[in-house]
Amino acid sequence: MSDDPIYHVDGNLVPASEATVSVDDRGFRYGDAAFETMRVYGGTVFEWDAHVDRLERTCAALSLEHGLAAADLRARIDETLAANDLEDAYVRLSITRGVQPGKLTPQPDVEPTVVIYAKPLPRGGVDGESVWDGPATVRTVETRRIPSDAIPAAAKTHNYLNGILARAELRDDDGQPGADEALMFDCEGHVAEGATSNLWFVRDGELCTPTTDGPVLPGITRAIVLELAAEAGISFQEGRYGLADVLEADEAFLTNRTWELRPIGTLDGREIGGGPVTDRLSRRYDERVERACYQ
Amino acid sequence: MSDDPIYHVDGNLVPASEATVSVDDRGFRYGDAAFETMRVYGGTVFEWDAHVDRLERTCAALSLEHGLAAADLRARIDETLAANDLEDAYVRLSITRGVQPGKLTPQPDVEPTVVIYAKPLPRGGVDGESVWDGPATVRTVETRRIPSDAIPAAAKTHNYLNGILARAELRDDDGQPGADEALMFDCEGHVAEGATSNLWFVRDGELCTPTTDGPVLPGITRAIVLELAAEAGISFQEGRYGLADVLEADEAFLTNRTWELRPIGTLDGREIGGGPVTDRLSRRYDERVERACYQ
Repeated sequence: MSDDPIYHVDGNLVPASEATVSVDDRGFRYGDAAFETMRVYGGTVFEWDAHVDRLERTCAALSLEHGLAAADLRARIDETLAANDLEDAYVRLSITRGVQPGKLTPQPDVEPTVVIYAKPLPRGGVDGESVWDGPATVRTVETRRIPSDAIPAAAKTHNYLNGILARAELRDDDGQPGADEALMFDCEGHVAEGATSNLWFVRDGELCTPTTDGPVLPGITRAIVLELAAEAGISFQEGRYGLADVLEADEAFLTNRTWELRPIGTLDGREIGGGPVTDRLSRRYDERVERACYQ
Repeated sequence: MSDDPIYHVDGNLVPASEATVSVDDRGFRYGDAAFETMRVYGGTVFEWDAHVDRLERTCAALSLEHGLAAADLRARIDETLAANDLEDAYVRLSITRGVQPGKLTPQPDVEPTVVIYAKPLPRGGVDGESVWDGPATVRTVETRRIPSDAIPAAAKTHNYLNGILARAELRDDDGQPGADEALMFDCEGHVAEGATSNLWFVRDGELCTPTTDGPVLPGITRAIVLELAAEAGISFQEGRYGLADVLEADEAFLTNRTWELRPIGTLDGREIGGGPVTDRLSRRYDERVERACYQ
């Protein structure tokens, strides 16, 4: 993989340095686009079907009828991986509403713009190495998660300023991030999620995570962890929680596609850390990746 | 002006058909960008100082320190107008956080991407012709305005899906918009604003508009109308209102840069229309444009 990776833009493989979209593309003008971030382990897109499902739910929420078959999208991803000679990778797939005449109101006929990004990430599974250096330092922020009646939380879109504002709050005086992740509340004051991660904590042996009835992305890693907990006989609940519930937890961790499971070292300076439940789930996650992608 | 207008991208005049940004630009990936839409009357950007002020407030809200002087931005706009031979125009100026290494967390050092769009619009002022065909048909929608503690309403950004979702609700069975504008409520159920316009109504001779204490863009046309009302001795209030307040109004209209003042013909099928107060304010608005740009 060179310094100039190959992206896939509108059907063509192009060097990243030359990969562009029109300034009239609605993805640029309005963030009018859906996306998915994936991990590729040993050449296999992990949980591809789940990504396709969520992408379709996002596009349905945006009334974005892109008309592209999942197999077509997958072929473009595979071409991108091959062009970059990547077996273990991060992949981002974006579909925008493209260029349309007129103004803000979206037109039903869409010529979508499809962009695929790829970059190397370490292999996963049992013998994989983590992409993070250590447990996450997490700080709560003032920026609230957008309520779903304004933008559905289940839609993964290019409108990411809410998370950017949250992350910007983490800046220390030197301008650098003072924490790895920003924990956001919903408008009612319940803990919701991180800017790019779902939240989990363990108390009295029970696994807890904020319900997707609130403004919480239905993360694919999140869904897997719920399955793994059920398989392992770990009792769990999805609910609405306050900050104190997390601060008093025995263990806490974050999940997303890139991090998989990452323990929360400190939350607002209070030490929490992983523990036996986090470890069990992490091991089972690695085993699942191993089975799905390396066997 | 040809079919391929000239845009201004990162310091260069380029045909619109060739005007692009990197797919790694944060303006594309995240909608991480500020913008302003302006009207140019007789070669003069109307209310330029107000646009500069609001742009700076948006960038402050986004912690986007672009480092560009207002005079530089204005010079680029003037170059764009000259290249397109435009005297009366719509201009959009976008400033993104540019390409940055790493992930979602914004870096303090910014190499902004600046894009200027221009297209012809009829002249304004006393002898101007309206850019709209007739009073607006308006329908209320389910999509709520994003609360300011999630994304500040005063920030005018490329995260425009909230308004797009509202507009998409207006689609009739044939896929075409069944109304000109979507009226949105805040999360508490007060009327807030249109997807791209501020709301006004008149009852018992008093002019009313939703307060910017709620999730309401501080429109520049809105500010001018408040000034004009004060000059004309029309009593006015900014407050929080329910739908019934608007439906029972004697007059109602919308404002934005492009429409200036546009009467609401019907709201959810109920006829409202303009009237003497709307007419007085429209005339004064035209006179203000005339004085500022054509004399």
